[in-house]
Amino acid sequence: MLSKNKINYILSLQKKKVREEEKLFVIEGDKLVKEFLSAKQPVKTLVAKPEFLNALPLVHKHGIDEIIPCGYEDLKKVTSLKTPHNALAIVRMPETRMDPDFLNKGLTVALDFIQDPGNLGTIIRAAAWFGIKNIVCSETCVDVFNPKVIQASMGAILHVKVFYTDLHILLRNALKDGIRIYGAMLDGESIYSQKLEHTGIILLGNESKGISEDLIPFITDRIMIPGISEAGAGIDSLNVGMAASVIFSEFTRSRGREGECG
Amino acid sequence: MLSKNKINYILSLQKKKVREEEKLFVIEGDKLVKEFLSAKQPVKTLVAKPEFLNALPLVHKHGIDEIIPCGYEDLKKVTSLKTPHNALAIVRMPETRMDPDFLNKGLTVALDFIQDPGNLGTIIRAAAWFGIKNIVCSETCVDVFNPKVIQASMGAILHVKVFYTDLHILLRNALKDGIRIYGAMLDGESIYSQKLEHTGIILLGNESKGISEDLIPFITDRIMIPGISEAGAGIDSLNVGMAASVIFSEFTRSRGREGECG
Repeated sequence: MLSKNKINYILSLQKKKVREEEKLFVIEGDKLVKEFLSAKQPVKTLVAKPEFLNALPLVHKHGIDEIIPCGYEDLKKVTSLKTPHNALAIVRMPETRMDPDFLNKGLTVALDFIQDPGNLGTIIRAAAWFGIKNIVCSETCVDVFNPKVIQASMGAILHVKVFYTDLHILLRNALKDGIRIYGAMLDGESIYSQKLEHTGIILLGNESKGISEDLIPFITDRIMIPGISEAGAGIDSLNVGMAASVIFSEFTRSRGREGECG
Repeated sequence: MLSKNKINYILSLQKKKVREEEKLFVIEGDKLVKEFLSAKQPVKTLVAKPEFLNALPLVHKHGIDEIIPCGYEDLKKVTSLKTPHNALAIVRMPETRMDPDFLNKGLTVALDFIQDPGNLGTIIRAAAWFGIKNIVCSETCVDVFNPKVIQASMGAILHVKVFYTDLHILLRNALKDGIRIYGAMLDGESIYSQKLEHTGIILLGNESKGISEDLIPFITDRIMIPGISEAGAGIDSLNVGMAASVIFSEFTRSRGREGECG
């Protein structure tokens, strides 16, 4: 049974300001909650149906500060979804310290002003799939702990570090260090024919405006996914989540084909 | 000003049964409505703010049976979205006759039991981008005229024909004709190293269950997008819309590199 105070508290975590003050965020869904528990993430509160709790291994329950069994009606009051799942948890934000050398270790994704939570979630999921470990967001991007981002990322958030920073500073320093900066632009060169390095930054821009003008000078390689829009016969552009999937896939593929053609 | 009858009529078109009886569907959004008018699609009713109507070229208005200027409050009553756009239109369903020989002309996408409207919309958008003209859906797929599909497809529906049929019959006939059937499966072979033909069927399965068991025997080539989940360290799978984007991209790329490596 959930107290009125607890209900209000959980709902208040839908706001970014409260999440940041409390250093907590909310996850929903049987699978997601189990994944967080399996990954030994610090769960403060678990609100779930008795069936869910009974089926949970003891070892997973040990680390939880507070377990509240409740029914559908209570879950409905605290969900951010149309229909509640069987479990919801309040989780402590991980301390994501940037490895000062992470830009020199494989691929990094830089996101400039991504506004749609579903898109950010999708990009995190694609990054996890293709083994990209770090995503750097501009301060103008949607919050990674927004419930819709967490929902769309489907647990991939456990495998990818997401930072927020000033992209100007990041890109300027990267350029000084000779790191390639691949910018996805409609007037770029075909990604199929470009040399894609193992280390570098993949820069993706806003859903409708693309990459901010003041970031464009930092780009060393403009990349583009060829589509029939080139001929003026198709659609404007791929959604940024779809574009990210294709670009990450191309970088993965190019790693595997080294020396294939010579 | 919208009459109560008209409001109820527009809302009733959110139901598949009504759409099929009336052979009409609803589109929303300034850009989408303009795209449909530019493409000379038969618009029965246009409901829009006076600003939108005033800015519309005369040539676009000619073909519309009924134009209803109205305000935000009226649009709010008929929208399927949280916040209404400035324009909404009732459009006649196109007569999509299957070219009996379409399977022999380039790539076709076959969708088995895709349930999420956003995913179907994304797949249509990706198909349009990569120049795929035909999508065949199992009867169990979500309806292409569902408002959420239309919204996610972002006008790509104008460039791609979507049919509904029994996939068993379609795939059996294709197999007889020697057409390759590429099935996306987690235990498939890497798509990066397989030979991908210009003509063939790309078969994608349900979001959680994959391709139906009784369709699997028709597959001639099992394809898979390599990800780090192979090593057990990552996530379950890519979302079907993301997977579709990557697969369509690989087919496009392979068309361009013929004879590249020999």
